[in-house]
Amino acid sequence: MPILKTISEKKAKGKVKKIFDTIKKTRKINTVPNFWKTIAADPDTLERTWDSLQQVMKKGSLDPLTKELIYVAVSMTNSCEYCIRSHSLAAKKKGMTDKMLKELIAIVGMANETNRLVESYQVEVDKLLK
Amino acid sequence: MPILKTISEKKAKGKVKKIFDTIKKTRKINTVPNFWKTIAADPDTLERTWDSLQQVMKKGSLDPLTKELIYVAVSMTNSCEYCIRSHSLAAKKKGMTDKMLKELIAIVGMANETNRLVESYQVEVDKLLK
Amino acid sequence: MPILKTISEKKAKGKVKKIFDTIKKTRKINTVPNFWKTIAADPDTLERTWDSLQQVMKKGSLDPLTKELIYVAVSMTNSCEYCIRSHSLAAKKKGMTDKMLKELIAIVGMANETNRLVESYQVEVDKLLK
Amino acid sequence: MPILKTISEKKAKGKVKKIFDTIKKTRKINTVPNFWKTIAADPDTLERTWDSLQQVMKKGSLDPLTKELIYVAVSMTNSCEYCIRSHSLAAKKKGMTDKMLKELIAIVGMANETNRLVESYQVEVDKLLK
Amino acid sequence: MPILKTISEKKAKGKVKKIFDTIKKTRKINTVPNFWKTIAADPDTLERTWDSLQQVMKKGSLDPLTKELIYVAVSMTNSCEYCIRSHSLAAKKKGMTDKMLKELIAIVGMANETNRLVESYQVEVDKLLK
Amino acid sequence: MPILKTISEKKAKGKVKKIFDTIKKTRKINTVPNFWKTIAADPDTLERTWDSLQQVMKKGSLDPLTKELIYVAVSMTNSCEYCIRSHSLAAKKKGMTDKMLKELIAIVGMANETNRLVESYQVEVDKLLK
Repeated sequence: MPILKTISEKKAKGKVKKIFDTIKKTRKINTVPNFWKTIAADPDTLERTWDSLQQVMKKGSLDPLTKELIYVAVSMTNSCEYCIRSHSLAAKKKGMTDKMLKELIAIVGMANETNRLVESYQVEVDKLLK
Repeated sequence: MPILKTISEKKAKGKVKKIFDTIKKTRKINTVPNFWKTIAADPDTLERTWDSLQQVMKKGSLDPLTKELIYVAVSMTNSCEYCIRSHSLAAKKKGMTDKMLKELIAIVGMANETNRLVESYQVEVDKLLK
Repeated sequence: MPILKTISEKKAKGKVKKIFDTIKKTRKINTVPNFWKTIAADPDTLERTWDSLQQVMKKGSLDPLTKELIYVAVSMTNSCEYCIRSHSLAAKKKGMTDKMLKELIAIVGMANETNRLVESYQVEVDKLLK
Repeated sequence: MPILKTISEKKAKGKVKKIFDTIKKTRKINTVPNFWKTIAADPDTLERTWDSLQQVMKKGSLDPLTKELIYVAVSMTNSCEYCIRSHSLAAKKKGMTDKMLKELIAIVGMANETNRLVESYQVEVDKLLK
Repeated sequence: MPILKTISEKKAKGKVKKIFDTIKKTRKINTVPNFWKTIAADPDTLERTWDSLQQVMKKGSLDPLTKELIYVAVSMTNSCEYCIRSHSLAAKKKGMTDKMLKELIAIVGMANETNRLVESYQVEVDKLLK
Repeated sequence: MPILKTISEKKAKGKVKKIFDTIKKTRKINTVPNFWKTIAADPDTLERTWDSLQQVMKKGSLDPLTKELIYVAVSMTNSCEYCIRSHSLAAKKKGMTDKMLKELIAIVGMANETNRLVESYQVEVDKLLK
């Protein structure tokens, strides 16, 4: 159970209702996912998070799929189940195949290994890299 | 200073020398980066890591640039300076622009924020996502 | 299921029983929480942890509520569900309102974001700060 | 050295210059700290981060000092030197004494210990806490 | 539910079947654990991980039990339930007693505390240690 | 520079001086390492940490060397340079060879990789393991 009372779509009012409607329209979904209903307990956090994500995830020099893949990779490194599942689904909708997901996971695994090898051996940064 | 004696290119022999040569040829570089010279203290780890990275980072369903971006994102989440710098350089060689890097960092930041929002609020996984 | 046999209140003897009694009296609760019953598998760890927490969490320059809020913030950053739930409850007993909790979570989220922005950009420490 | 070109106060233009001026005025400081000059490489991230922090850190149910203490605690858990130093300074300006800082660190240490004890023993969440 | 389709022993073919058989024979077990059936979704990752673990965990200067204890300690620090449970079982098979496990957990807890004390206080590395 | 004033051996008085003397005598060293001089800013934390470490690291079912190896492995996973260097030195004094250290690092690397594979694939805990 979440730590604070979730705001159902029925009970949403004012700013929260408006953002819920925007989320459903923008994402082309019929129900608001738990993440948004849960953080709606704090309407300011709901609004700031939605606006920030819209800005950060919009098409730029990186295409939307690549951006989702990066999001999934961070969520895997942080072991956040909800985030792994929801952003994997979002990535699939944007074209991620199972094969891509497997390659992504393999990289996440290796990066976590070599990150620790670097710290364990205390590898010095090459002059070239500074 | 690294925690174990680094193997210089001059002192490299046998398996280590062979891998050093392969690294320089494959990566088209003139000197072996510190990471490889440092983990060469353990030739088995050197060999396993090089072979694994070759397999994981080769072109697949994900192109090599996307793979490097994912590597950088994990390294940023783990705060590994060497890994951030070396894989950013590798990504640049494969086409990453400064604009892409900025967008990548913005996602890494936001993902780390929403990962913690999810855990803090104890958001429940939507049935749809299971 | 815990990884080692939990000590029920009925089976508690000697040092463990004494600490269980102290916990209930100090905290004004009727049953010993799972955390204590579980680590009681190792009476030395039980005793050291209880004594350390008593020392660290006692009223000092920081009031007990502020101390609990800090505890919750660390637990959220580490994604420890049990710790989030138990220390949130403790904080509520010491006066934390839902509004405070929402503000706390918002800070935890932002701090985790800017911590990663700092590492990703490799921001240099200002001379003033050293 | 930062991974992207820092924007000096002299070179700041348009949106960046405006935010730099706001930072100095709001914080009553004469020079812009490295964090802001570094993330100014991405004006959107600069603006979003400044606005978000203003919202999150403003006086609410939690007073500004308590908010800074929470920020410091998260930064310590994430081992982010810049963030520890800059938010400790901010906390001092808002009234944090050395004694408070010592108590804060003691809690951060203990919370990191007990978070791991909980995960290591796989403590079950008490029914009461769900 | 895992994020990708698990490969049951019945459906395993070719390289995957061969590795499944090797796992059962080497480990003297009758069924393939979920970890291997799950990562078998990516046969290359299955093979690389099995081979790497065989190399890393084989008897060397450190005996197999000590190696498992180290594996458990890392898994506890990363709060990975599956890894804690599976490597604890492996350690038990190699001779770990409950008393050893309790001592191990106590160290994991303390190390996580002092690691954060070091970062919080920004302790400087002694000249002697560099 | 540490975040709080370090207590030099000359300035140590009372409880702090006594613990400094005990540290030097117990560890058979001539100077107090920075860790202890730094946390001595908070004599209660100094005392609690020293006492706790004495209890946790004493010979038990696990021998002192194995205990140090576990400490090093946790510190590597947390990327704590000071802790890696100081506990590696302590481990060397207790018999750790360079070969052991290399094997230890290889395990730390692999464990960090497989921990993330487990979370990325969302591997389910085998019934046998619960």
